[in-house]
This record gives sequence, C-alpha cells and structure tokens, in this order.
Amino acid sequence: MRLTMRLQEDSYDIIISRGALSRLGKVANLMNRKVLVVTDDGVPKAYADTVLEQCSDGVCLVLPQGEASKNLSNLEKVLSKLLSEGFTRRDVVVAVGGGVVGDLAGFAAACYMRGIAFINCPTTTLSQIDSSIGGKTAVDLNGVKNIVGAFYQPEIVVIDPDTLDTLTERHWVNGMAEAVKAGLIGDARLFELFETEDELPLEEILYRALSVKKHIVEQDEREASVRAALNFGHTIGHAIESEQGLGGLYHGECVALGMLPMIADKRLRARVKKVLEKLGLPTSTAFDAKRAAEYLRHDKKASGSKTVTTVRVDEPGTYRLEKTTFEELEALLSSDAFA
Amino acid sequence: MRLTMRLQEDSYDIIISRGALSRLGKVANLMNRKVLVVTDDGVPKAYADTVLEQCSDGVCLVLPQGEASKNLSNLEKVLSKLLSEGFTRRDVVVAVGGGVVGDLAGFAAACYMRGIAFINCPTTTLSQIDSSIGGKTAVDLNGVKNIVGAFYQPEIVVIDPDTLDTLTERHWVNGMAEAVKAGLIGDARLFELFETEDELPLEEILYRALSVKKHIVEQDEREASVRAALNFGHTIGHAIESEQGLGGLYHGECVALGMLPMIADKRLRARVKKVLEKLGLPTSTAFDAKRAAEYLRHDKKASGSKTVTTVRVDEPGTYRLEKTTFEELEALLSSDAFA
Repeated sequence: MRLTMRLQEDSYDIIISRGALSRLGKVANLMNRKVLVVTDDGVPKAYADTVLEQCSDGVCLVLPQGEASKNLSNLEKVLSKLLSEGFTRRDVVVAVGGGVVGDLAGFAAACYMRGIAFINCPTTTLSQIDSSIGGKTAVDLNGVKNIVGAFYQPEIVVIDPDTLDTLTERHWVNGMAEAVKAGLIGDARLFELFETEDELPLEEILYRALSVKKHIVEQDEREASVRAALNFGHTIGHAIESEQGLGGLYHGECVALGMLPMIADKRLRARVKKVLEKLGLPTSTAFDAKRAAEYLRHDKKASGSKTVTTVRVDEPGTYRLEKTTFEELEALLSSDAFA
Repeated sequence: MRLTMRLQEDSYDIIISRGALSRLGKVANLMNRKVLVVTDDGVPKAYADTVLEQCSDGVCLVLPQGEASKNLSNLEKVLSKLLSEGFTRRDVVVAVGGGVVGDLAGFAAACYMRGIAFINCPTTTLSQIDSSIGGKTAVDLNGVKNIVGAFYQPEIVVIDPDTLDTLTERHWVNGMAEAVKAGLIGDARLFELFETEDELPLEEILYRALSVKKHIVEQDEREASVRAALNFGHTIGHAIESEQGLGGLYHGECVALGMLPMIADKRLRARVKKVLEKLGLPTSTAFDAKRAAEYLRHDKKASGSKTVTTVRVDEPGTYRLEKTTFEELEALLSSDAFA
C-alpha cells in the first residue's frame, strides 16, 4: 500500500508493506550515495543490518534506547558522524527505530549542511501510526519535550509491519492509542474496527490512521490551524506524561487517558473506554491529578495565554476545536471521565 | 531606503536608514511580545540597550566576540534562555551584531519550537552588506564553518549605517570586499563607484550590494542553482581562510584574494586590484599557497566529486559558472593572479 503526502514544496511517498525493509535499497536508491543509519540499542540489530546490507557506502550509529537520548548532545554526535564521514548534500540519513530515533535523526538531517535527505523507517506501532509522517523533527531540552527542532519532510517513509513482531505487548498497544485517536477525529470506520474486530487488521489500521494524519497535515503543514486536531487527547495527555516523568506511563497510554475528558457525550465516552480496555490501555486515574494540574499551571505561566485550543469529539470521525481556560482543564483532570 | 525580499513562502523588508535602531520598537512591533536580544561583547553595549529600551518585556544575552562563539554550546545557551524565559511562538529573537551573532541567533530562532520570529540588526559592514539577508543561519562544528544550520528567513532586517561608526578601519574595509564582489557579479555601476569615488557613498553601496544579493536569492533561495554566483571569490577564499585559521586574515580579505584568480581578463583583474588596494584590502600572496591547496584537497576528498562549480567574471556586472577540477583550482592558487 502506498500513500502520497502532497505538500506545497515537497511530496513524498509513504509505503506500507510487509518486508519493505529488505527492499529499501532499491526503493530509496541507497546504492549511489553515502548512508548513515541511525538506530538505538532497543531496536533489533537485524533491522539496521538489513538496511546496511543494501548500501555500497553505509555506516551506522547506535544510540541508547529511550526518550533521554533525544537531546542536543546526541544530536551533536550524529552531526559529527556525518561530518567525519564526509557526508554532502547528495547523501542521506536513514532512521531505523521508534519516534526517538526518527525525531533525532530527522532533525540532524534537517540541519546538517542546512538539510540533506532523510528516510524514515519506523519500527514501532507508535511511529508507524503517527510520528513518522508529518515532518516534525525535534530533540528535548531541559526536560521539555520537542522544544528544539524543525519542520522537515522525509524523502520517503517506509513502513514494514513485520518489524512490529518483535515489540513487547505494551509497546505494541501503546501505538494503537494514536490509531484510536485518528479514528475518533477523522475516520469513524477505523474506530469501529477496534469495536468490532477481534483479530485487528493491522495493515488496514496503519493505512487508515496514516490517511487521517496525511489529510490534516496536507491542509496545515506548519501547525497554524487544523493540524491542532492531531492533538486530540494530547493536552491533558502531556500533563499526565509530565507528571509521570520518565519510566511512568507511555505516551500512547497518556493520550488514551487524555482523550476521555475531551468526549462530553457519555455514550461515546463509554464506547471509547471499552475499546481502550479491550486493547489493554489505561482508562482510569493511574496518575496524580493534582500534580498533573501543576504541570498545566506551569504551561499556563509559560504561554502567557489565558486559553488553550482543545480538541473535542462528539461522534466518531469528526472533531471541533474549542477555546478552554486552564481552570476548565484542571477541572477536567479531576472529572468523572476517569471514574 | 527599503528593499523587499520576495520569496515563495515569505516576504520581508530590508530597511536601510540612519538611526533605524532607535526606531526598531515601532517598526518591528517589539512592545507586544517577549524579545530576546542576542549580541556579543565586541558590539557597543549601547546598541543592544537602544533595542531593549523599546521593549516592554525584553531580555539580553551577551556572547563572547568572535567566530569561536558560533558553536552548538552557545546555541544551547540561547535556546535555554528562550525556554527559561518562557518564550512562545508569538515571541521574537533580535540579533544585534555581526555575522556571528546573526547566524547563531537566527539558527536558534529557526529551531526553538520549530521556528519563532527573528529580526536581524547587523552592525558591521560585512553583515550589513552580505550575511544579514538571504536566510542562511548556522553554527560551526569541529572546525568546519556553517556546517549545521537552517535556511530561515528573518521577519525584517534593519540596517542602521550609524552603527558602523564604531568599527575599526580593518573591520570596516573587510565588509567592503563583499560589496566589490556584488558589483562584479551583478552591478557594474557599483563596481565603478569604488573606482571613481574618493568619498564612498555608503548608503548607495549598501543599497546596491543588497539589491544584487536580493535578486539572486529571490531566484534561488535554497542554493540549488544561481545562488552559487554569490560564492564568487569564496572557493579559493575559503581555502585561504582555512589555511589562516582563527586570528589570520578576515573573511572579506580572503574573498578579496579569492576573486583575483577567477578573473581571467588581465585588464579587469588590474582594475579590481587597484580597487582593493585603494580600499586597503590584500591583493598578493599573504598566505601559504601550498597549505591552502591541502585544504582544497581535503574538500575534494569530502565531497567525493571531481569538479566544483566556480564563478568567473569577465566584465563587471556579469558572471558565468564553470566546472573546475581541483587540480585547476590548485593551479589557480599558485597563479600569477597574486603577483
């Protein structure tokens, strides 16, 4: 399956195909340029090796697994590697791994020589369903996620669902939260798949979730308007994630929780809860609401604004944007949505 | 005087006006957003103070003067300052200083939150004539200049020629080399001004030099084709600059030298030499040609390419691009152009 992201300046293909990683050399022309593969030590080595075998001039950089790796120091490590290996604007960076690797390697490609080619090969459900497309690259700084980065589109995104076989159950489920989100904001049928299917049709889910994101990003690449819809579940989700710190709930788990208070309709909220429970995602107060509210207050102070734009879903497949005060958000954190 | 840079996505004004710095608050709407002024300790403090006085919520960061400051560590310093002061996408970074400050602050603005507003107030001839417009931002890494950065356009460029009064003679002259370059590649009248005028008409020179650059950048923002023309004098100039290291010849002085072997016509070369001498720029072998050739060879190895595109000028106001081998470049380094 293939999707094409059509943006003002760039267009690129998103390929979803079992075994795609072993065909990357041909698909992405890796033989005629230098290739730096960036991966992490939590990703099976075989995946990076599969890519390297298809290069005539490939090198590999392995980062430590985890969000803590997404920093300026590792960015410098990637940039120094590109420099010492003599990479030029004709060469390419290939990310093989999850969102951490993709965000960091993508940002390195964005700023090395003011931009060289970047290919993203996501190997987790979270990155295959969400973070690998859309062109957001970044690193964290002083505990703030994704605060330093670039909008930088990949040359191609190659999604090989076979790589998901090696994920732990919890990581696998984690990414599904973003697919549920995509269904709720843009594809009722996708949401219903989670309700009705016992054996989830993985490729259809990937295709439908990416299609929702693609259509939104095409309308608003730089997050000036409708792209905000992709943040459904993320405002409160981020507060919960900050409260948890590293080692707590995963991103998708926090998004799952964050969606619930943004669904005012009780019947729909019950349906969503049922789907999350079926998947094995959290639905109740597995976090400290008071501490999460403090993170919201901190955000408020930083933004200097009285309201934030939140995304609300009243029926699957559509959303609306709503100005919400921080006081209202704090109230939502303690609401019966998590009961 | 005002020029407007018209690019595909952004347009912005370049204002050239004595005393403009003291009107920046109004011109650039500094009262209704947070302002971070980035400057260095070689720039008179009064310039940054003039800007800060016009802000309701302004802070200042002073970097050490010199090219050595243009690194990832100082980039992090600027980014951390933006973060700790709670800057958002509605706020602005203002550079007050030369190319080092402009390149670094511009790159910080480009990647903080994936891009916040940037205003450039160049205070040296080199930055007023050349580096402040065109959207190239960057830092150096492991001794390689401008290897990490972004194409990122400022919101406005405000050029106050009064700030040049405090420059040393050598710094003043240094920037004029880029104006001579601009005349040679794109404005015969500008070149002739240097030949005929004893009292140089500073504002006209700024306006004409910036116009040449503007027209070229408008055709090729991302350096895919004609923008290469701006590199006239820079291929050999950079080799000389690398050979010199920090503390040697200035950038403009190296560009002045680098233009000479790219002018095959002996009569024109003699005219250019006369202009450079009149300005007080170097025209003969003030560098080690053998060592400079080694830097060229190193570039060759890194690029993996057999030729480089060089810019040639046969008569003032026009240029042509030519594929040149590294062997030919080495020969030019030892040619009689410097005799």
